[in-house]
Amino acid sequence: MQQCDTLIVAGWCLPVSGDGGALQDHAIAIHDGRILDVLPATIARERYSPGALIERPRHVLMPGLINTHTHAAMTLFRGYGDDLPLERWLKDRIWPAEHRSVSAEMVRDGTRHAIAEMLLSGVTCFSDQYFFPEVVAETAEAMHMRAVVATPVVEFSTPWAENAAQCLSKGAELVHDRYADHPLISAAFAPHSTACVADESFAQLRILCDQLDSRVQIHLHESAQEIVDEQNSSGLRPFARLQKLNMVNATLMLVHAVHLNDDEIALCADRGVAIAHCPRSNLKLASGMARVEALRKAGIVVGLGTDGAASNNELEMLGEMRTAALLAKAVAGDAAALPASAALRMATLDGARALGINELTGSLEPGKWADIACVDLGTLNSQPLYDPTSQLVYTAHSQQVSDVWVAGRHQVEDGQLMHVDIDDILTRSAEWRDRISAA
Amino acid sequence: MQQCDTLIVAGWCLPVSGDGGALQDHAIAIHDGRILDVLPATIARERYSPGALIERPRHVLMPGLINTHTHAAMTLFRGYGDDLPLERWLKDRIWPAEHRSVSAEMVRDGTRHAIAEMLLSGVTCFSDQYFFPEVVAETAEAMHMRAVVATPVVEFSTPWAENAAQCLSKGAELVHDRYADHPLISAAFAPHSTACVADESFAQLRILCDQLDSRVQIHLHESAQEIVDEQNSSGLRPFARLQKLNMVNATLMLVHAVHLNDDEIALCADRGVAIAHCPRSNLKLASGMARVEALRKAGIVVGLGTDGAASNNELEMLGEMRTAALLAKAVAGDAAALPASAALRMATLDGARALGINELTGSLEPGKWADIACVDLGTLNSQPLYDPTSQLVYTAHSQQVSDVWVAGRHQVEDGQLMHVDIDDILTRSAEWRDRISAA
Repeated sequence: MQQCDTLIVAGWCLPVSGDGGALQDHAIAIHDGRILDVLPATIARERYSPGALIERPRHVLMPGLINTHTHAAMTLFRGYGDDLPLERWLKDRIWPAEHRSVSAEMVRDGTRHAIAEMLLSGVTCFSDQYFFPEVVAETAEAMHMRAVVATPVVEFSTPWAENAAQCLSKGAELVHDRYADHPLISAAFAPHSTACVADESFAQLRILCDQLDSRVQIHLHESAQEIVDEQNSSGLRPFARLQKLNMVNATLMLVHAVHLNDDEIALCADRGVAIAHCPRSNLKLASGMARVEALRKAGIVVGLGTDGAASNNELEMLGEMRTAALLAKAVAGDAAALPASAALRMATLDGARALGINELTGSLEPGKWADIACVDLGTLNSQPLYDPTSQLVYTAHSQQVSDVWVAGRHQVEDGQLMHVDIDDILTRSAEWRDRISAA
Repeated sequence: MQQCDTLIVAGWCLPVSGDGGALQDHAIAIHDGRILDVLPATIARERYSPGALIERPRHVLMPGLINTHTHAAMTLFRGYGDDLPLERWLKDRIWPAEHRSVSAEMVRDGTRHAIAEMLLSGVTCFSDQYFFPEVVAETAEAMHMRAVVATPVVEFSTPWAENAAQCLSKGAELVHDRYADHPLISAAFAPHSTACVADESFAQLRILCDQLDSRVQIHLHESAQEIVDEQNSSGLRPFARLQKLNMVNATLMLVHAVHLNDDEIALCADRGVAIAHCPRSNLKLASGMARVEALRKAGIVVGLGTDGAASNNELEMLGEMRTAALLAKAVAGDAAALPASAALRMATLDGARALGINELTGSLEPGKWADIACVDLGTLNSQPLYDPTSQLVYTAHSQQVSDVWVAGRHQVEDGQLMHVDIDDILTRSAEWRDRISAA
């Protein structure tokens, strides 16, 4: 018998590797935070002597969900200013609310709330863009959550930095240097959008990224108006401006990319540019609907993100995956577009690829970190069961997530967060609500 | 002190009447199955001496959700044949599965499963179209669920009836006559679609409906192909054919109505035709996206439906409401389209209006049946709370439904079904799965 820390035995396992099919009655052995083995349950019981044996017969094991785009601290603005036209939402609600509240303390409290909520819904990794990224990184580390912490870059002064140059230097020091080779935290840069960053700053960013071997993510072609505005200011579409600035390569992830023309899609595929698709945010803000099936067919790696809770209002990747699969069919005019297995891959392995961390996580394979979610498919709404992948994508809710492990640590057990004081989070969030809505 | 059976005291109450706003710290008094009073909690505690006092401080009370379109028994086909093109889905999967399984027993078991699931998710009324409608009615009555049971009408032979004439006569006798003036069961007719019903049968249906004072619901303009096919066979668009057949009036509810042109929308508004909008089914089958904001602005009553679990795969109206609200914004190109309060009304009172039962249910008003759902908004994913309507529509999941009453009967308490043997339902559904997938 071989020792391992944990052996999880489940009704089904969806490794999101190989042919993508479901494995029945399989087990995962975890040791030292990593996946040691994925194998049939009967063999696993003979081979391994686990410290903890976890049995989940009605459940499916899957890679932890990867939220490729969010602004975690904005969870504190959830539902503050819904159903307004985009301009009024930004100018009357979100920006003033940020002006009143953004601080290290606010980012810590909002990020804590978001991480707890994401863990409960099966998310084991999120990519964040917000002020005080060093606080986001500290909070994720303290909660043992995997995160890609992207330093925001804008020209204007914010409570965190005075200008783009300071954004770059603070990000390099406080995130990149401090978390180099960290098992859970990865660093990136996030110029907010072409509208918010000058050519000179992009040039500095380019140099810095090459020095630090860093990846870049940027809101791009989210709305049609953004494209018109950039054309009016630089004469170029935002994507073309990035090209001119030598930013379009395999270290780039475009966030939203709702409005890409055929040439731009071909270029993204050719250069290895990845995309973070955020369907619910795009619907809610009436930004449009990305042509996901066309992106996939072109060979582009598309991950999935929730965006922040101010524009979603959920951080729930199971639902985002479902919306992505449903919407892609109608947009493509083909009920066979974005099938369940592809949507699951988008929410896991392809998200990891888009973030450049697929060596670490995104599938259930020996050697990767044990980032795992376990979902109960025995509930009325997920039965009868013909195909676990279909049922997972088209019926499962976050409340069916029974267990979550991040790098082998059991974070959610029987639907309960193990190491988080929820009451404290709720109390602080209510205090922030009072402060934010006091205006 | 006045006697009442039940007094529910909650953090918020959304009556979906009057101006549509949220009432804080309100109570609902229930007596003899009906709503006696909706009033501030402090006054309620002084005025009423209840048989049962239910306190839900973190929760919102709302009218029970109304699913205006489903095929409950098809829950047994959930996930059987996902991600196939429409033609193959129907011809290779659904029709053969129905051929192998449809019977009174199958309809009873499938409908039981669906009702239990809908109750758990806050649905207190569903409108059904399926074979053996008398079994649907019996099952709903036995489970104390409100239902509009629509007798299917098709020309071809089915396990239930030989032809359209027999559909009409059986429906009149077994549903309309048997359940006349029933407190929970209402009857209607459901010619499947213009493709499945001949002019002569529509003429007989017209006469029968006038005699029985019955309402009609029909799948119409669901897909672009359906319109082409009808034009090829009758020379008319399906809606125009219904008009010619004298079916277009205020007793008609169109199901789906994805592809209506401006003239047809104006005519629906003018004649008082209602619509059952099923956004997730329309997305999943790539049928298209209804112009919901245009329908609403024209003054058409639009209810919300899940469709059957073979084409959704959920029967969850909270999620359907959320999808409707999000999708309407992108389709209208306006983030202010279909705001949360309007989406809630669509899932409740407007559904009741579309089904012609708004005197009975659909809002929390004295005199109506006590069809009520209670949703916990204190969970991490629904906090912080700025606006309960927003949070309900954009964040709440069925698992947050704590309590449900149908005509005053407490059907779900603390998230548990009170009078239903779930294990028996799951066992039977698994047996049906084996039989259906054995082919």
